[in-house]
Order: sequence, then C-alpha cells, then structure tokens
Amino acid sequence: MIDIAAFKNTLSSSSSRIIMLVVDGLGGLPHPSTRKSELETAVLPNLDRLAFESACGLTNPVLPGVTPGSGPGHLALFGYDPLKYEVGRGALEAMGVDGIDFQKGDVVARGNFCTVDSGGLVIDRRAGRISSEFSIPLCRELSRIEMDSVDIKVYPVKDHRFVLRMRGGELSDNVTDMDPQRIGVPLQDVKYIANYARKTADAANEFVSQARHILAEEERANMVMLRGFSDKPALPSMGEAYKLKPAAIAGYPMYRGLAAILGMEVLDTGLTFNDEVDTLVHHYEQHDFFFIHYKEADTAGEDGDFAAKVKALEDLDTLIPRLVDLNPDVLVVTGDHSTPSIMAAHSWHPVPFSLRSPWTKGEGMETFDERSFSRGPLGIMPAVNIMNLALAHSGKLGKFGA
Amino acid sequence: MIDIAAFKNTLSSSSSRIIMLVVDGLGGLPHPSTRKSELETAVLPNLDRLAFESACGLTNPVLPGVTPGSGPGHLALFGYDPLKYEVGRGALEAMGVDGIDFQKGDVVARGNFCTVDSGGLVIDRRAGRISSEFSIPLCRELSRIEMDSVDIKVYPVKDHRFVLRMRGGELSDNVTDMDPQRIGVPLQDVKYIANYARKTADAANEFVSQARHILAEEERANMVMLRGFSDKPALPSMGEAYKLKPAAIAGYPMYRGLAAILGMEVLDTGLTFNDEVDTLVHHYEQHDFFFIHYKEADTAGEDGDFAAKVKALEDLDTLIPRLVDLNPDVLVVTGDHSTPSIMAAHSWHPVPFSLRSPWTKGEGMETFDERSFSRGPLGIMPAVNIMNLALAHSGKLGKFGA
Repeated sequence: MIDIAAFKNTLSSSSSRIIMLVVDGLGGLPHPSTRKSELETAVLPNLDRLAFESACGLTNPVLPGVTPGSGPGHLALFGYDPLKYEVGRGALEAMGVDGIDFQKGDVVARGNFCTVDSGGLVIDRRAGRISSEFSIPLCRELSRIEMDSVDIKVYPVKDHRFVLRMRGGELSDNVTDMDPQRIGVPLQDVKYIANYARKTADAANEFVSQARHILAEEERANMVMLRGFSDKPALPSMGEAYKLKPAAIAGYPMYRGLAAILGMEVLDTGLTFNDEVDTLVHHYEQHDFFFIHYKEADTAGEDGDFAAKVKALEDLDTLIPRLVDLNPDVLVVTGDHSTPSIMAAHSWHPVPFSLRSPWTKGEGMETFDERSFSRGPLGIMPAVNIMNLALAHSGKLGKFGA
Repeated sequence: MIDIAAFKNTLSSSSSRIIMLVVDGLGGLPHPSTRKSELETAVLPNLDRLAFESACGLTNPVLPGVTPGSGPGHLALFGYDPLKYEVGRGALEAMGVDGIDFQKGDVVARGNFCTVDSGGLVIDRRAGRISSEFSIPLCRELSRIEMDSVDIKVYPVKDHRFVLRMRGGELSDNVTDMDPQRIGVPLQDVKYIANYARKTADAANEFVSQARHILAEEERANMVMLRGFSDKPALPSMGEAYKLKPAAIAGYPMYRGLAAILGMEVLDTGLTFNDEVDTLVHHYEQHDFFFIHYKEADTAGEDGDFAAKVKALEDLDTLIPRLVDLNPDVLVVTGDHSTPSIMAAHSWHPVPFSLRSPWTKGEGMETFDERSFSRGPLGIMPAVNIMNLALAHSGKLGKFGA
C-alpha cells in the first residue's frame, strides 16, 4: 500500500476483474507417517489444473519466522504492510457486526459472557457457549446501562460473544484486557496503560460492575469479560489506493470487519462457500476486485485434524470450477497464513500462492502444494507484493518511469 | 533486531534450546575442473542426513552482491541488521582479548608490530610475524608510555598483533588508519576526520612517536602501526532482545569479542572444534541459545586451498553427530559468509542454511550443498531473518496480531 503510492500514476481503472480466493490457513506441514502435507495428501484435480496454468510461489505474510494473526495475514494480502498498519481484534470484530454504529472517537471491545463462582473466580470463560437465543436478550439488557460521561451500546455477535461500544469524551484503547486466560482465578480489572486512557478504563470497569448486578441471577452467563479494546482504525481506502471497486465475500464477521475497515463493499452472503460463490456470481458485473474467503481449512488445522483439513481442501476443490468458469482476468488462490494440522495452530511457514492470468499459461506446475510451489517461478516473496502482481496481470498497473 | 522489536510481546522464555553452528566461510564455488563446489566434493554423510530432516535454503548476510566482513556476517546471524549496527574491527579484537579493560569512552585500535627501513619505509607489515614470545615483552614496554591527557595500555593479542587502548578526555574513533596496505612506502599519520577527533589523532601519533624510540634497536619489530580505531559499541543485548540466555563457544578472539559485545556469555573453551563441542556439552543445561563457531573452512578458503576446505568440511562432518545427539529443539547450521577457495577470499555468494526442529521433518533435501539448497523450501532469504525462524521453531516466538 505504501509501496503502491510510488506507482500511483501508473495505475488505471479498467474493466478487467480480479478474484482473490483466500483459503484461510492454507499452508500445512507433512504428516510424520507419510511425509506428505495436507495439500499433498488431498486429491485436488481442479487446483492442480489451476496451478498448471498459473504463476506459483510461496509468500511470507509478515516476515520469515513470524506467525501472523488473521488481521496481519489479511492486511498483507491486500497490500497493507502489517508492520505499519495495525487493526485491533475488537475493531475487526465490531466492523464485522452488521448494523454496528462504530465511528471515529469510539472505542469498542470484544465481550464474552462468562461464568464466575460466588467468590468471583472464573469457572467458564464462555458461559457454556450459550446460544444467541439466550445472549441476545442479555445484550439488550446490558445496552440499557447508563453512565455519566460515556454512552455504551452492546451488540450481540454469536453465542456467548458480544461487542461493547463506548462513545463520548476522550476515549482511548490503551487499556488492558480482563481475560485471565484460565479458570479458577478472578477476572482482571481494566487498567489504563497511559494516563490519557484512565477515563476509558474507569468506564469499562463501571460497565462491568453494573453488568454483574444485572446478570447476578443468571445461571451460566452471570458475568462479562472485555478484551481487545480498539479505536476505529483509519487505514487508506483500498479502492482509492488501487483505483478499484473492491467487494468482500466472507461469511465470518471478522473477515467482513477487516474488509469494511479497508473500504471494501461487504456483500451479504451465507456461511457456506457455495453461498459465497453464489454471491460472487450474482455481483460479478458490479465490481472489479473480489475477495472471497474460505474458512474451513483453518478451522480443521486449528483443531489439529489432519484428515478434516484434507477433506476441507477437497471440498473447496470441487467448487474451483465455478470460479474458473467466470473467467476472471486474474484468479489468485492463496492464504492468509499457514495452519499445519500437526501444530494445531497458525504458523510462520510460507503460504502457497498461485495467480492465473492471460500472461501465465506456460509454467506447468504439476501439483498445488507447498513443496511444488517452493520451486515455483515466483520463489518466496512477501505477501504484500501480491496486489502489485494482481494489478499488473490485470492490466491495471502500467510502466514505472520513462 | 529492530524487526524483532515489533514482536517483542510475542516472545517468551522457555526451556527449549537452540544451537547455531556457524561454519565460517561455509559457502563455496565449483572447482573449474570438476564443476563441483567444496560442499559438493566433500563426503558429508552427517550433514546430508541433517539436511534431509531440515528446512534448507540460502541466505544473504547483507544484500545480494555485498561481500560481508566477519563482523557484519555474524551480526546478521544474530538478527542485527549489519547496515544499522556497526562494530569496528578494533572493538571486535579488543573484546576478544581476555582480561582487557575496555569501557565506554575508551578508544581501542588494532596494532601491528612492523619493520621499517632507515628511511621509514615499510619493509614488512607484520615484522616477520614475530611470535608472542617476542611481542609480549615489547607490549609491556609500550604500556609504560606516558602522555599528558590520555592514558594508554597495550595488550598483546598473538604474534605481531596487539591492542592499544586509549582512555581519558573526549576520545573518538573518527580517525584514519596508519596502514599503507603495501610495502616500500611510509606509514601514514593518524588523521582526524572530524574536528572533535583531533585529540585522539594527536594522542595516537604521540604514542607511535614514543614507540618508535622505544623500539629503535629492535631488528624486526622496530615500529608499530595502528588501524581499526573503535569506540566501545553499544548494541542491544541479545539476551534482552530475545529473552534468551545466550552463550558463545568460539576459540578465536574476534568471534569471542563479537559475542561479548552482544552480551552473550562467552564460555572458556579450547581452539579445536572438538574442544568447543566439549564445552557445549558441559554447559548445555545452563543456556538456551548456543553460538558455536567452526573456523577452519574459512581459513582453507582464504588460503585458496580447495582440498583443504573439502577436508575441513569433512572433519566437521564427523563431529555433527555430537551436536545432533544433544537433541536440541532447533539446530541451525549455516555460515557468516561464503569463502570460495577459487577466490581465496570472502565473497558475496549466498550462504547455505539449514534448520532442524520438530516442525521440519519432511522436506527430504538429499545433500548439504549450495546447489541443492538453492532449491530448498526457504529460498534465498536475508540472514537477519534466521533468528526469527530459530525462535519460531523453538516455540519462543508467538503469534503477531489478532
């Protein structure tokens, strides 16, 4: 993004279309017994065919050795250097909640309903994962809380999760979390890190105190905890930076939130990838850049379920022809980070990357996987360069210098 | 190092151990008659096996095309960008001399005894490489030199080499060297580059003038030359930056000096690599990061002796099992720069790099050499990223961002 500024004058709008498929947690590691990764194990005829026609390589989302969270991983994909641009988790979550009113000057936090015992020690950090059916009315109750100088509003997210929005006066996100990260201990107070954040910490603690009284009779959701306090991020608009009309198609709130922060139009869609592709087809004429997100590979990887990740990749593969059939000028398939099943977590390992365009027909990579792509013609590159490549291959990024 | 600052909150101490074996001058170039490099020629069953289980690639210590000195080469290995952090050669040498008293504000210089003719022209820049037996008493003599405002002390290093330490008043290393780099010409005066370094230049020239008188009757060591003037470097502590307890095992003073400058604990050890491994085994429980240095590959390369470098690599290979048997969480094998025998000098060629951890069992590289590693999954990366990778693979570097 910063980099692209140097090439701004060489950018031009055009009717060409870019689809960027982000397979969350795409990269993996070999299973110890087979020495084959999830991608190498899965049967992926459509991705393999795509790789054959694409320019392929691996990307580092942040830096070699650095394990990206979802925020930094996605920022890099859209050309925003994740070491320069930061987006708090609370903001990601808030921006992904439909209908939230989150403005400059506000501070939001991620909230959990949780269960504490009579001594205030945490028994369950997620209140037994109560369903939205129970949590939505509780959020409505909590929204009625009134405080002197700060207005609050509580938005349900899903199950035990909500977003608290604070507004009024000089708020700051420079405060600590309440989450003790384990059970059997008390929740922590919100503390201010810098003096100017004192009012925010006081307001948050006052909110929690009132919430405790309101929830006192609840069996499971008898308390709340707040974390991930965030200002509204002010990032350059992706559309303006690249002269694009970008759209985001993602079922999960966090990815919708990130896209909104970058100024993409976040399209209504369902939770399955098939729903997402329907949405893509339906809106294909209205935008020239589409971010479409596939979550299941990451979920299986985080669960440490090698077979489930293989299955998630094979499921994805069956839908690849629907993307190819749209015949976009540029089709990128990559991930925001690796999630090797044998680690059951995000990792720092480079992420497979493929890009198909009219200018990439001859490379003939046989299979879509980490090992094969490590020998791909693009080598290992920083993920922030992906947008440059996509713009170039779509004819939108011209000659630099005379 | 600068980069790691962004990730400081994601670093954590743990009991996992990292061994970094630095094979000085590791990389080479093909012999014209065989088209095989030193690594490709040597029989290295243990390094080959290690490569099979490792993530492999090549590194650029500074930048493509830039030939690193030993200082920058090692700084990069420990994560200090050598374009940002500079350590003068005098400081490296001084810090490696056991018992030297080198404090902030002092300036040190590398000294050579040398031979000049009656007209002051240099006949031998190293005074016939007189042995320490002769040079130690001369250093004692020179240490008696007294000057008005600057205290000096002369420390023998080895053979014709010594370290001059100056102390007192406002000294600066911003002065020129005396070494004319060839014979048949006079030594150069020390000149100040900035005005504030005038006192240092005057003191150095005064020292040399007095030394000339003291040494006048010597047959070979009848003069001294000074170069590599250095302040005491103030670099961030490696232990603090990475939350490590780092130890250095190196026989040669310069590498010990560098490690001391970075705040590593420099362990007593012998000059052979076998001695060094003994030291490693002996101290294995007391540290979580070990830098262990193997010098002989570079020496042979600098001598332009292809066969000797092959032999040095094969000698090293026989000791690799002793490192592997310690079963460190992370075992890195790399070099500080390449020293191709056919060039008889350091070179800019990328340096082989391998890293074995619990998360690198499946890559199956067959041989440990430049050509093979150039197709390794890590590609060609800046050497400053090695520490990030080592920390990540040892579980000490966590997730960046939400």
